[in-house]
Amino acid sequence: MAELRKPIPVKEAVERVWENRQDGYTEYISITDCDNRRLAEDIVAAHPVPSFPKSPYDGFAIRSEDTQVAGRNQPVSFKVIEHIGAGQVPEKRLHEGEATRIMTGAQIPAGADCIAMFEICQTYEEGDQPYMSIKRKMDSGQNIIEEGSEVAEGEMLIPKGTIINPGVKAVLATFGYSEVKVSKKPVVGVIATGTELLDVDEELQPGKIRNSNAYMIASQITRAGADYCYYGKLKDELEASYATVAKALDEVDILITTGGVSVGDFDLMPDIYDRLGAEVLFNKVAMRPGSVTTAAVCGDKLLYGLSGNPSACYVGFELFVRPLLQHRLGNQQPFLKRVKAELAEAFPKANPFTRFVRSYITYENGQLQAVPSGIDKSNVVTSLAYANALMVLPGGTRGFKAGDEVEVLLLENQEGQGEF
Amino acid sequence: MAELRKPIPVKEAVERVWENRQDGYTEYISITDCDNRRLAEDIVAAHPVPSFPKSPYDGFAIRSEDTQVAGRNQPVSFKVIEHIGAGQVPEKRLHEGEATRIMTGAQIPAGADCIAMFEICQTYEEGDQPYMSIKRKMDSGQNIIEEGSEVAEGEMLIPKGTIINPGVKAVLATFGYSEVKVSKKPVVGVIATGTELLDVDEELQPGKIRNSNAYMIASQITRAGADYCYYGKLKDELEASYATVAKALDEVDILITTGGVSVGDFDLMPDIYDRLGAEVLFNKVAMRPGSVTTAAVCGDKLLYGLSGNPSACYVGFELFVRPLLQHRLGNQQPFLKRVKAELAEAFPKANPFTRFVRSYITYENGQLQAVPSGIDKSNVVTSLAYANALMVLPGGTRGFKAGDEVEVLLLENQEGQGEF
Repeated sequence: MAELRKPIPVKEAVERVWENRQDGYTEYISITDCDNRRLAEDIVAAHPVPSFPKSPYDGFAIRSEDTQVAGRNQPVSFKVIEHIGAGQVPEKRLHEGEATRIMTGAQIPAGADCIAMFEICQTYEEGDQPYMSIKRKMDSGQNIIEEGSEVAEGEMLIPKGTIINPGVKAVLATFGYSEVKVSKKPVVGVIATGTELLDVDEELQPGKIRNSNAYMIASQITRAGADYCYYGKLKDELEASYATVAKALDEVDILITTGGVSVGDFDLMPDIYDRLGAEVLFNKVAMRPGSVTTAAVCGDKLLYGLSGNPSACYVGFELFVRPLLQHRLGNQQPFLKRVKAELAEAFPKANPFTRFVRSYITYENGQLQAVPSGIDKSNVVTSLAYANALMVLPGGTRGFKAGDEVEVLLLENQEGQGEF
Repeated sequence: MAELRKPIPVKEAVERVWENRQDGYTEYISITDCDNRRLAEDIVAAHPVPSFPKSPYDGFAIRSEDTQVAGRNQPVSFKVIEHIGAGQVPEKRLHEGEATRIMTGAQIPAGADCIAMFEICQTYEEGDQPYMSIKRKMDSGQNIIEEGSEVAEGEMLIPKGTIINPGVKAVLATFGYSEVKVSKKPVVGVIATGTELLDVDEELQPGKIRNSNAYMIASQITRAGADYCYYGKLKDELEASYATVAKALDEVDILITTGGVSVGDFDLMPDIYDRLGAEVLFNKVAMRPGSVTTAAVCGDKLLYGLSGNPSACYVGFELFVRPLLQHRLGNQQPFLKRVKAELAEAFPKANPFTRFVRSYITYENGQLQAVPSGIDKSNVVTSLAYANALMVLPGGTRGFKAGDEVEVLLLENQEGQGEF
């Protein structure tokens, strides 16, 4: 009858797969396509920013020494010798009593050491020659953005492993990265098992359910920054199933099967692991949901047997698969971000094993609050829809009151952390 | 000289563009491609879940009444008449003293009203006939997941406007949505202005900078759930520029230009608004950065003139453009999520106008903390790379101490809120 399996603690299960992590690959892609990818090289300033001294305002570039005699009743006049906009290069050096009309972002002409904003200047013409005058003293360097004052040449700007958001993309564009070196997306194979599974476009039939896990896992893989390859549903027959699994394992970086890992009479996966010669790292974890999660190593590849139960499958992916994908992607903080939160509703159920409760995080006056996102039955698929966190209730606890402090793993946080 | 512009409060600027919002469109897409899109219809349970009574365990389906005489020293025996796995439909009705061997997820046979798990059963054979016996009483309904016990038929599951995450996708698959009705992505046109701008693949030249804003805005548009269309850089010539803007405005849902909206001598946009007959909603906002942000309406389309300064451009997009995109996408909470946080570092600068400080949010013991993500100069592009929030420091305040409570707008939060 039922094979005896020894459950191991969650943390130990995480460690066993983590020890079998593999580094990822890199590739160059167009800056246009780099959103949400992770940098595979440090971004270092190839030039100072700004790369020339420039004006922060529309105004006049002058020599501050020429203004030292200026005062409320003593305007000083300047002959305007040039007029430059942003992107133009001043051609004339300023000498005593000369000014250059200059626009925001334009390069400071040689000889000038300050900018007088339009607001404090009077302009006039004599003949066709423009002049301006001011009635106050200026300091050397006033209103000038010096070369390199924002970023010095050679400055380390963004470390590799960083996810590319709009701000990072702006930095890449500034420094001319038309092609960006990023981590290559690992490919995760997905195979469903279970004769009860219908395709999503099939009519419901007695005794059967539609295959939601394959779509859910594909979406989780995508959210984790990887690509997926779906190999369909295993036939209820060992020889053909073995061939499908072996082929998939050969083609992908990591393989996930859903279902078929129990000790039920029709669960083929244990036999397939045998045939593959895979080393089973664990086949039972002391947690709810997901106690029948299996992980195995075959050559240098990880093979996960996640539960056929949607919630267990979901949790198993986030705990055991996601960190290894993040590692391959070069994230130095590959584990789900774990934070403290206040439990907003009582959770009176006892927890003989560590329980991961699908939860929703809100913010009340700067305080994180966690609410279970649905009835916590293993089979209730709808509670996953609102989950943005997993509450971690340690095994051996007897239930929690509203207001208790709990730990939660954030599912939509890109930052992560260094340890489980 | 400088045209006089009257700055309006940020909130009023947001309201003026919000009054000109347009509803979006919908489309059907394959479930395979629906990640991160927003539902354009309510998802209602088309059938109960489960759609048949099923077993949560591997075990034997029996009639509880047959176990009423069982006890520790009094085993009751059952003849095993059928053996069914998940997905199989039981063919035999149970009568007194009969049992069906049943796997997790399989349909309960007619006649049975409880499941005895393998762990409490003894199995044996007489001839080729399998039997099992148990030594305890079972209750009617014990270990049976009743039809509809997870979701009742007709139950409202997920409202339209919800973003499709892995859990939502699982629900869609469960109910057979091979095609999903989602909000169509609005298309935002992007035009850069400024003779100082080089393309990202060009060598740096004196007086010039690379065009980072167009790439940054494209990435912000993508993050906001919309598509972008880049029309390149305007020539420094009114006629051609007008033609480009008019063509773009005709082709997109919303048009953004960056730069050229100051009152500098070479800023063309004000003249182009005139030529288009666009109604300018505002051209100066009492905020830093981004005071020279412009918004205008032309027909039923919004036309934004964001600052050429990267930080001002970034903030202008998030405050004034993003909510209208979210509205078009059917998000009932289209504004950036605003939460309270503790300021982790002093921000001693006075704020004559409302200041939006690019910040990084962290969690310390369940408490949100905000740290400025870089020196807060308008031109410092690198501070955007680490920003996941904008701290809102009200105008008229004299600086803030570490530990002060501040409001922050979360940039990577998908939830949003109903009001600015």
